[in-house]
Amino acid sequence: MIYKIAVKDARYQLDGSAGSDAIHRDPIYSYAVTQLIDDSGTTGTGFAFTLGEGNDLVCKAAQYYAQKLVGKDIEEMMTDFGTLFRQLSDDQQFRWLGPHKGVVHLALASVTNACYDLWAKKRGVPLWKLLTDLSPEAIINTLDFSYLEDELTKEQALALLKQEYMGKSSRESILKTGYPGYDTSIGWFNYSDEKVRENCKKAIAEGFTAMKLKVGSADPDRDIRRAHIVREVAGESVKVMLDANQQWTLPNAIAICKQLATMNPYWIEEPTHPDDVLAHRTLAREIAPVKLALGEHVPNKVIFKNYLQAKAAAFIQVDAVRVGGVSEFLTISLLCKKFGIPVVPHVGDMGQLHQHLVLYNHMAMGHEALFLEHIPHLQKHFVHPARIRNGVYETPQEPGSSCDLIALHH
Amino acid sequence: MIYKIAVKDARYQLDGSAGSDAIHRDPIYSYAVTQLIDDSGTTGTGFAFTLGEGNDLVCKAAQYYAQKLVGKDIEEMMTDFGTLFRQLSDDQQFRWLGPHKGVVHLALASVTNACYDLWAKKRGVPLWKLLTDLSPEAIINTLDFSYLEDELTKEQALALLKQEYMGKSSRESILKTGYPGYDTSIGWFNYSDEKVRENCKKAIAEGFTAMKLKVGSADPDRDIRRAHIVREVAGESVKVMLDANQQWTLPNAIAICKQLATMNPYWIEEPTHPDDVLAHRTLAREIAPVKLALGEHVPNKVIFKNYLQAKAAAFIQVDAVRVGGVSEFLTISLLCKKFGIPVVPHVGDMGQLHQHLVLYNHMAMGHEALFLEHIPHLQKHFVHPARIRNGVYETPQEPGSSCDLIALHH
Repeated sequence: MIYKIAVKDARYQLDGSAGSDAIHRDPIYSYAVTQLIDDSGTTGTGFAFTLGEGNDLVCKAAQYYAQKLVGKDIEEMMTDFGTLFRQLSDDQQFRWLGPHKGVVHLALASVTNACYDLWAKKRGVPLWKLLTDLSPEAIINTLDFSYLEDELTKEQALALLKQEYMGKSSRESILKTGYPGYDTSIGWFNYSDEKVRENCKKAIAEGFTAMKLKVGSADPDRDIRRAHIVREVAGESVKVMLDANQQWTLPNAIAICKQLATMNPYWIEEPTHPDDVLAHRTLAREIAPVKLALGEHVPNKVIFKNYLQAKAAAFIQVDAVRVGGVSEFLTISLLCKKFGIPVVPHVGDMGQLHQHLVLYNHMAMGHEALFLEHIPHLQKHFVHPARIRNGVYETPQEPGSSCDLIALHH
Repeated sequence: MIYKIAVKDARYQLDGSAGSDAIHRDPIYSYAVTQLIDDSGTTGTGFAFTLGEGNDLVCKAAQYYAQKLVGKDIEEMMTDFGTLFRQLSDDQQFRWLGPHKGVVHLALASVTNACYDLWAKKRGVPLWKLLTDLSPEAIINTLDFSYLEDELTKEQALALLKQEYMGKSSRESILKTGYPGYDTSIGWFNYSDEKVRENCKKAIAEGFTAMKLKVGSADPDRDIRRAHIVREVAGESVKVMLDANQQWTLPNAIAICKQLATMNPYWIEEPTHPDDVLAHRTLAREIAPVKLALGEHVPNKVIFKNYLQAKAAAFIQVDAVRVGGVSEFLTISLLCKKFGIPVVPHVGDMGQLHQHLVLYNHMAMGHEALFLEHIPHLQKHFVHPARIRNGVYETPQEPGSSCDLIALHH
């Protein structure tokens, strides 16, 4: 039984220009952490990610949701978590502050993730194993399909998952080989050209075969120059992704993406405003075969459904510490599977939680094991930091979702 | 010069079942109030609306934005408010909590509205008069057109406004006749059939020619029965609007709206999830000629642009205490004008602020003077409550935006 909760505001200064992009010049990576303390002695930890200012607001909202879980048994709660998730996300008064977006939804992510963490820890298994061992019915009962009925009802989702489970054992080899990673930290926005060049060489030496550069400069020539530097150093066989962090208008995006096409990007990420479904659809059509990726700022399954219906994105970058946690992440992953679109999460969690989720997505849902973003900047703060070797995430073995933070752990 | 700020959390209990709808069964109408205190002795008041829980979160975020205005001169600030608005809404770290939605954007509405109120008070005129007397250039400089470039650039907006200003004086008769209102309070969700019937008669006796009923029940027969009661009592010449408050799935909405069509609703409001642009587009096509209205939960101009592009809504119900305040309300109104779609605001402010804005929209932008929602429940708390007689809003004459609250006023 959950007998106590604790919510903590954890903020971490980054070194130098790490983390900088076209719109976030000086972030403080922060977590609004929920701890669900069980009378068995186990603590479930979950968090949402922010860039510093306002992390306390998310904490306060998480406190409100978490308080409602006191007295509940985690196993019982997870047998029908989908219903509870909907109740929490449709809280009569709190809902006005979203719905299903912004501070309140980030807070719900924090609390939801703590539930899944506690569940796995109490069973003594890593989250990927908990999920993979559950029946399709048990998984589906943790999800909420409201407002997806025109594309994916609960019944359809169950049928889809049952079908994919038939290939599950054949895909378990990923546990041994490890899930591929890609390096996001070669080209933060404020890094000099020279530093980008060096980081690129280093990433290749470390075994990465995919990496990302921040673009979206007020000076398009800077973007184009730096993109070609990375292509030149990385060679033709490496996948290079470009990330504009919403900096372009639609007309600008069309013009610049056509120029960037010459260095053959694997995708162009967040070209414009994350709410602008129809602008992305127009852009995707204009710059094909260049592909778009997006999702780190998309708050919920309804908007992802719109992006998928509009065929606006070739890669979906849903983040389980932005949408309503593991539950909504899995719902969106099922929706993507239906549409045949790969899930390549944004890792506000630095990959700690997502390393479990992409293993499940691959093994149980049959999603391609493409690669998972890797950002190393907070490794020293985690009790069980994600381990990446030769460009590959090693499969985590500790019970839970690998989200315990050193200073907060007891 | 603004030398001090104050942010206040004001919550008001409603009587009985007032304010109830299909999703909000027990709201506490609340304002996160920003006061900008000028060294001239004038206080600018603005607010955002919430349903109670979490109003403190909006206050805290408003404090963060408002603090940045200390030391500024209001007249100087408003000469280029559009740029300041964009800076605030793209604050490096705070932006992650949105962007442009949820708690942080509600907070920005509160602060923005206080700026316009202070501006009008210092000039000693009602807000509608301040706006109407400004040149098209001066208005446009208070607005932010970022991410609208594919539909309406700043230059195009100026040209549009200049053109509409030519008919401005001919539309000033609205100041004398008053802006028509409609009654939202005849049929709150929890009211009995008998109370709906009585309220309907009362509204007609008071001179209203348009009124709204809450639907979205789990039992569609209840909705249909009550809709027909209103039509029967009101007669054929009264406009009756139905409001489902997001309660339907798309498949349900299609089925129920087709049944409700038989009582000839003027519009059907918020049929499903407010983020679901493409579901509304599908529904609008399926149930034509029945028309859809939406906007009270739409947080920003980018999503409104998508709704307009998708031809998903026949009426746009933007609320200046939900989007980023007066500035973004006017931007969205211009966008609607371009698309030929009427603006019929949702009034989280109980019509206090919007009575000014619809006068401006009509006189200066050439929007049809359709009607403005009227909700009487908080009248006693305002220093200058909106006055509605014979179903018509009387033109407010006091300086400012009519948003001062009695207990908070000094």
